[in-house]
Amino acid sequence: MLETNTSIRVRYQETDQMGVVYHANYLVWFELGRTDFIEALGFKYHEIEKQGVVSPVVDADIQFKKPVRYGEEAHVKTWLEDYDGLRITYGYQIFNQHGELSVSGHTRHVIVKEGSFRPVSIRRSFPNWHKAYQEALEG
Amino acid sequence: MLETNTSIRVRYQETDQMGVVYHANYLVWFELGRTDFIEALGFKYHEIEKQGVVSPVVDADIQFKKPVRYGEEAHVKTWLEDYDGLRITYGYQIFNQHGELSVSGHTRHVIVKEGSFRPVSIRRSFPNWHKAYQEALEG
Amino acid sequence: MLETNTSIRVRYQETDQMGVVYHANYLVWFELGRTDFIEALGFKYHEIEKQGVVSPVVDADIQFKKPVRYGEEAHVKTWLEDYDGLRITYGYQIFNQHGELSVSGHTRHVIVKEGSFRPVSIRRSFPNWHKAYQEALEG
Amino acid sequence: MLETNTSIRVRYQETDQMGVVYHANYLVWFELGRTDFIEALGFKYHEIEKQGVVSPVVDADIQFKKPVRYGEEAHVKTWLEDYDGLRITYGYQIFNQHGELSVSGHTRHVIVKEGSFRPVSIRRSFPNWHKAYQEALEG
Repeated sequence: MLETNTSIRVRYQETDQMGVVYHANYLVWFELGRTDFIEALGFKYHEIEKQGVVSPVVDADIQFKKPVRYGEEAHVKTWLEDYDGLRITYGYQIFNQHGELSVSGHTRHVIVKEGSFRPVSIRRSFPNWHKAYQEALEG
Repeated sequence: MLETNTSIRVRYQETDQMGVVYHANYLVWFELGRTDFIEALGFKYHEIEKQGVVSPVVDADIQFKKPVRYGEEAHVKTWLEDYDGLRITYGYQIFNQHGELSVSGHTRHVIVKEGSFRPVSIRRSFPNWHKAYQEALEG
Repeated sequence: MLETNTSIRVRYQETDQMGVVYHANYLVWFELGRTDFIEALGFKYHEIEKQGVVSPVVDADIQFKKPVRYGEEAHVKTWLEDYDGLRITYGYQIFNQHGELSVSGHTRHVIVKEGSFRPVSIRRSFPNWHKAYQEALEG
Repeated sequence: MLETNTSIRVRYQETDQMGVVYHANYLVWFELGRTDFIEALGFKYHEIEKQGVVSPVVDADIQFKKPVRYGEEAHVKTWLEDYDGLRITYGYQIFNQHGELSVSGHTRHVIVKEGSFRPVSIRRSFPNWHKAYQEALEG
């Protein structure tokens, strides 16, 4: 199964006054993992947008298990959890410097037209992308 | 049932190149709603931290239904979804300027000691807070 | 002289592990002050963008005098420092809850075409806006 | 002269609806450059904080010349501009993927006690750090 591993160096700006990474920033780290996963599939997200579509998140869940701290080097593991021709679900696990599971979660995405946000079928409109996701799912 | 309503003026900084609010920022808006809800219960979060504890999120779910755009005035409705003496679950709904439901979700929190992040029982250590949450739940 | 006063409630997300507002966020607060100032001039920034132009910052300076903390209510005072038909310079002062000067600074802006970022003369292309800035400068 | 070069992959979250990196984020990139520069001097910023001090920015200036866009790989060049035993001034240049100068600027820092923010003399309290900065300046 395709899986990518993205290294993250914690930014001071990402901490809050609890002395740990502010929780919403893990969604940004999921984005970094997803970018690498899409590249491993053979695409670049910024080139997809040049075709007049964007890929917003439709839902997300996150479990915060252990805080990550400034000065640590974290890792995001990303994989394809589900795909049905219309919606793509990614899974994520973030590990802290000691290899402990810190955060896990999923984000589900669709493809929509830029501006109007009208849904687009990946299967019909982006057959190359569809094929890559199908193959990644079947492993 | 206790419910608070928080007005949010979209910041340019909160948008991304899709032309809408970047998805992780809705978790920040949930934080703003939660702050108001806690005040409506009779507490101030920054005074709670003066007692040597912090209240991290342990898990969250979010559903993104309609993007919110710069120039809009949004609203966050916040309520207490669940409370068991140890964990507090808040529910949220974000409405856009036209009163349409844009985002919904939950965050679940615990109280832990600052620094060590050791769990603290709200029921035993913060009886006033416990009472307020119990009453809000029974509401 | 036209001057606006914008109230800011510090967000937990805006703090860092020093226990104060992370310095780059004051530029965001300048943006909030500027938005109010532009409205006081009779315009709305998001409507300006509907005409196919954007108004990026070309330079900025900031002096950090006293940190602002979570739980405080801060204020941004904004005024027009300079305007020459092409470039707009705003001045800002941020005061903490005790009325002490916390941060001061300036941002200088131009108007450019969306996408290409080609400069546009405000005097020639937006005579209404030009007139309002001229009058604000002459006080 | 000691100079460091830090590679930055633009995050989608860092863009705004102008389709470019939101201006305040370049201050965060300066922070990433500074972190690398401090490491090149032989220190780690997160270990400095373990001694009960923090190093806030006291002033900053930034010139925005060319916007950086999502999908680009940018670079931050960082050097020591000035040091007087009390205040440290760093210089920065950010280059876009095509090697063009996109952003330049400076940040000036002091060392203060954590919590109280009382100033600390680097020369007297951190002789090792003082020596490294002296040498980098004379470099």
